[in-house]
Amino acid sequence: MATQIQPGTQRPKVPRTQPGIEQFTLEQRVALLEQELEQLHRTTPDANKVTLLIFSGEQDKALAGLVIATTAASLGMDVTLFFTFWGINVLKQKRVYSGKDIKEKMIDFMTPKGAGHMGVSQMNMLGLGANMLQQMMKDKNVVSADELLALARENGVHIIACSMTLQVMGIKAEELTDGIEVAGAASYLASASRSGCTLFI
Amino acid sequence: MATQIQPGTQRPKVPRTQPGIEQFTLEQRVALLEQELEQLHRTTPDANKVTLLIFSGEQDKALAGLVIATTAASLGMDVTLFFTFWGINVLKQKRVYSGKDIKEKMIDFMTPKGAGHMGVSQMNMLGLGANMLQQMMKDKNVVSADELLALARENGVHIIACSMTLQVMGIKAEELTDGIEVAGAASYLASASRSGCTLFI
Amino acid sequence: MATQIQPGTQRPKVPRTQPGIEQFTLEQRVALLEQELEQLHRTTPDANKVTLLIFSGEQDKALAGLVIATTAASLGMDVTLFFTFWGINVLKQKRVYSGKDIKEKMIDFMTPKGAGHMGVSQMNMLGLGANMLQQMMKDKNVVSADELLALARENGVHIIACSMTLQVMGIKAEELTDGIEVAGAASYLASASRSGCTLFI
Repeated sequence: MATQIQPGTQRPKVPRTQPGIEQFTLEQRVALLEQELEQLHRTTPDANKVTLLIFSGEQDKALAGLVIATTAASLGMDVTLFFTFWGINVLKQKRVYSGKDIKEKMIDFMTPKGAGHMGVSQMNMLGLGANMLQQMMKDKNVVSADELLALARENGVHIIACSMTLQVMGIKAEELTDGIEVAGAASYLASASRSGCTLFI
Repeated sequence: MATQIQPGTQRPKVPRTQPGIEQFTLEQRVALLEQELEQLHRTTPDANKVTLLIFSGEQDKALAGLVIATTAASLGMDVTLFFTFWGINVLKQKRVYSGKDIKEKMIDFMTPKGAGHMGVSQMNMLGLGANMLQQMMKDKNVVSADELLALARENGVHIIACSMTLQVMGIKAEELTDGIEVAGAASYLASASRSGCTLFI
Repeated sequence: MATQIQPGTQRPKVPRTQPGIEQFTLEQRVALLEQELEQLHRTTPDANKVTLLIFSGEQDKALAGLVIATTAASLGMDVTLFFTFWGINVLKQKRVYSGKDIKEKMIDFMTPKGAGHMGVSQMNMLGLGANMLQQMMKDKNVVSADELLALARENGVHIIACSMTLQVMGIKAEELTDGIEVAGAASYLASASRSGCTLFI
């Protein structure tokens, strides 16, 4: 595809400031412009693309990322969510203990499954902050993180789980919610490098 | 305005790699180039724009964001700061309790007003870290977060408070510092999608 | 250099939508296109550049940043890592106490030297989480943060220590690992504004 940026594509120098351009014929100058415009096209991010990396396992941060992602999708933008490290917990729907070693089981036991069970980054106070935030959002008719994740998926947001995280933490694909891809850091970079808005959440 | 990017604007394919371009007249090719350059212009972020989302209510993170914002403004860049979630505390100047429900009052009581009262993300130790950081910055003539916020405003930085956060936390506009706008996630995206540098702080 | 973006460079308006362009000769239109393409080139971020700001002193976050940086470098991308605030600890290799005041010594004593001694952002539990994460990564043959930092340097990643942080915390250049530059927020912005992918970690 002509418009896809390959990471590693070197942006060419523009020869406009080089001397001698006026010696070219008009046709040569137009051919050069066509070539350069295509190269610039391939090496610039697209303002209509958004790629968010969800690293944190905190409910309030996941919520902020999901609000941005679903708002962007509703505006017609092309959105990718890449879940890594503790952010993977947002995608966990159930626990599978069989076939895991003791460290994998421990990390599984200590991390929440799904955004509704995650704490908040401030004022957590043994879950009080998280519950209060959820209650206040409910009072004001703001939807929950789990609802926003479903909404994102329905609206064509690309949802990717980090393959290295799954491997290190011993998480199985069947523990995750449906309709997601599994990919690595190179895939993240291919998407982020083409995006106008890139955030680490 | 011709140069404003609308979120959702699809970037067109560049037809340079399509066969048959050499059958066009030179004038047609120039007209096509003009059209494509304008489209590329409208769908690429501007390296001179910076949009920072301040989510965190930690003094050190707010400080980092404000240092980047004021430095960018001093370099002539076009800067937008979007304060959301706990980041709203940076903008709080006084507390208004009347007309708030009990959960809103509690969240108000538990969150600091103004950056000078906020903790730090590491080594907070009941405020010791925050005080020590402030003292060390003062010793080295580095200005405080509240001073940087005033400096940002004086230098034309666009300061936006997230409307959803104000609504969920029951914060009133009169509790915030002067000279700020109130807007939602769509406004954030309109600014961020046009910006070369976008950070979630 | 023609392709370097100076922060503060105003992006020009594209006159394509202005009336009267059809009155220009073809040669004038081509000359205008050449000029505008060069201006657009200078004011758009480059999808092949990545600039990560490492603010956090948490091992898992540093690790995430270093995985992205080394993956990007291996894909041929141009990568800059800017270490500031607690992120500076990733670069600390030894402690020098002489010539520091009491607050500088305290902050030195309380902060780790090198990524291997840093805690994690979640489940730290007095170091248990950090040790477990390291052990699990070792079991799965994922390299450590210190190894990734060396790998980044070997692969041409630009590593910058924030000059303001060194000054405020009283850290001396000889305490940091070799092969790094010291620079301020303006240098960070010069790099970030040219980059497709910018993250605050």
